[in-house]
Amino acid sequence: MERIYASYWLETGDDPARAAEVIAGEQSSGTFVALATETPALKERSGARVEKLEILGHSTTPSLPGGMPAARYTQCRLELSWPLENTGASLPNLMSTVAGNLFELRQVSGLRLTGLRLPRAFVEAYPGPAFGIAGTRKLTGVTHGPLIGTIIKPSIGLSVEETVEQVRELVAGGIDFIKDDELQADGGRCPFDERVRAVMRVVNEHAERTGKKVMVAFNLTGDLDQMRRRHDLVLAEGGTCVMAVLNSIGLVGLQELRRHAQLPIHAHRAGWGYLTRSPQLGWDYAPWQQLWRLAGADHMHVNGLRNKFSEPDDSVITAARSVLQPVVPGVEMVSTMPVFSSGQTGLQAADTYAAIGCADLIHTAGGGIFGHPQGVAAGVQALREAWVAAIEGVPLQQHAGKHPALQAALEFWK
Amino acid sequence: MERIYASYWLETGDDPARAAEVIAGEQSSGTFVALATETPALKERSGARVEKLEILGHSTTPSLPGGMPAARYTQCRLELSWPLENTGASLPNLMSTVAGNLFELRQVSGLRLTGLRLPRAFVEAYPGPAFGIAGTRKLTGVTHGPLIGTIIKPSIGLSVEETVEQVRELVAGGIDFIKDDELQADGGRCPFDERVRAVMRVVNEHAERTGKKVMVAFNLTGDLDQMRRRHDLVLAEGGTCVMAVLNSIGLVGLQELRRHAQLPIHAHRAGWGYLTRSPQLGWDYAPWQQLWRLAGADHMHVNGLRNKFSEPDDSVITAARSVLQPVVPGVEMVSTMPVFSSGQTGLQAADTYAAIGCADLIHTAGGGIFGHPQGVAAGVQALREAWVAAIEGVPLQQHAGKHPALQAALEFWK
Repeated sequence: MERIYASYWLETGDDPARAAEVIAGEQSSGTFVALATETPALKERSGARVEKLEILGHSTTPSLPGGMPAARYTQCRLELSWPLENTGASLPNLMSTVAGNLFELRQVSGLRLTGLRLPRAFVEAYPGPAFGIAGTRKLTGVTHGPLIGTIIKPSIGLSVEETVEQVRELVAGGIDFIKDDELQADGGRCPFDERVRAVMRVVNEHAERTGKKVMVAFNLTGDLDQMRRRHDLVLAEGGTCVMAVLNSIGLVGLQELRRHAQLPIHAHRAGWGYLTRSPQLGWDYAPWQQLWRLAGADHMHVNGLRNKFSEPDDSVITAARSVLQPVVPGVEMVSTMPVFSSGQTGLQAADTYAAIGCADLIHTAGGGIFGHPQGVAAGVQALREAWVAAIEGVPLQQHAGKHPALQAALEFWK
Repeated sequence: MERIYASYWLETGDDPARAAEVIAGEQSSGTFVALATETPALKERSGARVEKLEILGHSTTPSLPGGMPAARYTQCRLELSWPLENTGASLPNLMSTVAGNLFELRQVSGLRLTGLRLPRAFVEAYPGPAFGIAGTRKLTGVTHGPLIGTIIKPSIGLSVEETVEQVRELVAGGIDFIKDDELQADGGRCPFDERVRAVMRVVNEHAERTGKKVMVAFNLTGDLDQMRRRHDLVLAEGGTCVMAVLNSIGLVGLQELRRHAQLPIHAHRAGWGYLTRSPQLGWDYAPWQQLWRLAGADHMHVNGLRNKFSEPDDSVITAARSVLQPVVPGVEMVSTMPVFSSGQTGLQAADTYAAIGCADLIHTAGGGIFGHPQGVAAGVQALREAWVAAIEGVPLQQHAGKHPALQAALEFWK
């Protein structure tokens, strides 16, 4: 029978084998006390199985409080598996199973979901993204290299007119992609409908004149009826992308948006920090993004190399690679496009390219574009040229010799 | 203008005042670099404000990794406020604002959302629970004292027939409330539809004979169309409650279920551990439950005193009290009923009653009922008698003198 596999980093004050069995029990047929009704046959059929348990080390203090007191705590790599029959191919019930009550167990002084191997049934049950990399390239006309993107800033507080001014400058400057801030959905100063209409006038005019339609990810995060209505407005105005904050709407929110949408869904991960910032608790990005891709995320944020946040580069690279891996190896599903952001300039282009081995991504820069001494157009051009150099394997300084926008950028990028 | 207030426990390696401003900026009009477009007028109008910053202490090591290195780290109590205009009364956008990117900031080596004060507009924009305490009492006929409840165990793996056997015993034993396990939604061994039909036959027969309809919280967690259809089946079969796992369906999932539902929604918090288990990260229960109550949760889990999980009693009490507080003081909204569970028996009745000052709750026990030497009926009776003693202020031993079921229970409860 097909099974679901989940890997964890576990720390326990208990005997690791016993702790593993307790976790497997809590997340399947067991409970705190032995029950006559939990027969060996039932357990064999429906219980979670401990597939692997590998001791990594020991410590004398627990990572997290509240667990059972012990003289020493053991860190392990744990893999559990469940029969698919327990949940069926259901994303919400998968979440309750692999990331439910187990984090609260007293046997646990640290627990982190590090990986997920799903059976093909999930790809059959869920649509995945409708556009992904190929669809996004088609809609933007960017056939090679990354989409050069930016974000409207200040995050919140601009009027519609001020927003449009920025968009006008960016569109004229040759940008491929613009996104709303995750805080800007339908604020009183910049209502969604007015913003979309005014921004799309600029985008459409430019597209009619030049043939290039800039993709704008309008943040429609809200209640479901609001999101549907806002999507329809974006579509009607000729827009080509909508954005939603995953943790704020939840799995059902994304599923329903995907079901309704005729545009790519730019998925923002705001709140990700509370799921991941303690290394001994919560979620790695790799298993987390699988759920959202299955539910339909076309673009997923992965932070950026040398970002302004607290995430180290190796974590960013692992996250980005995970987005480019199939959700279920060997089973076809439209590929989600990773989005690199936060403190980005052309200086990260070569390393990013080297780390993920392709340029199927959105690279967004704020100061890296707006700060260019020759203006926004030169900022966009410089970032694009940095990517050409990265892809062709030419050192940045050398490439800059023949490209004045890049040359000027190298003086302020840092 | 009305504002949203959020309190945090913050640890920072930076100057605390500067860290507070960075957090306020990141979650409103600011970004990592100074922008000419972030004018003083814009900041005054749309920026988050640091309302309070109180130093609590210092340490030489950071609680969480990834922050800026420092010789010492400062712990503080921080309160921020935002103009309601930034988000409007929108739960998903409130979440992005008070619990968005801020946890990832390098200025942060610990950050936990501890409180939320919302303007009245949220109560006007969202329905809150439709049934709550009063509606649940009406549907169950339990006019005083707690609902005595239990959960079907093993969590998963029972067939429909085996589930019905347990229900039959419980219903005959006088139970008020039964819930599915959070892992049991529509598994292959115990499909939702069959389970509901078979269980409700037993519940309905008993109700017809005795006038007492046991409330069964059927776990309908799933995709939205599944949840709606399952709700309708429960309703059609005469059921009086549905259950959903909040973290697995998300805010939009609960909102849409609430909009569709004609039955109380029993809200399970599986996954709560990853949001809360690190004391230096994530969410306190008090602000978290406010969002879900606004969205429509009728019953909310708060763990139990001396539970089998890692949560200490003071945290359980604070959580339970928060559920009984108004979401917005002075603004009427149906009251959500707290649910106490995990390792519960009558021994926790008096302390629970003393801690929250009322018995408007569901008290679920597994082993505390099934383990009774005289059977399930005596187990239910004993738990109910323990509550009578608690409410009347009679010592348990004394009350047991006149109540044999309680007397026998005291010999195995521990």
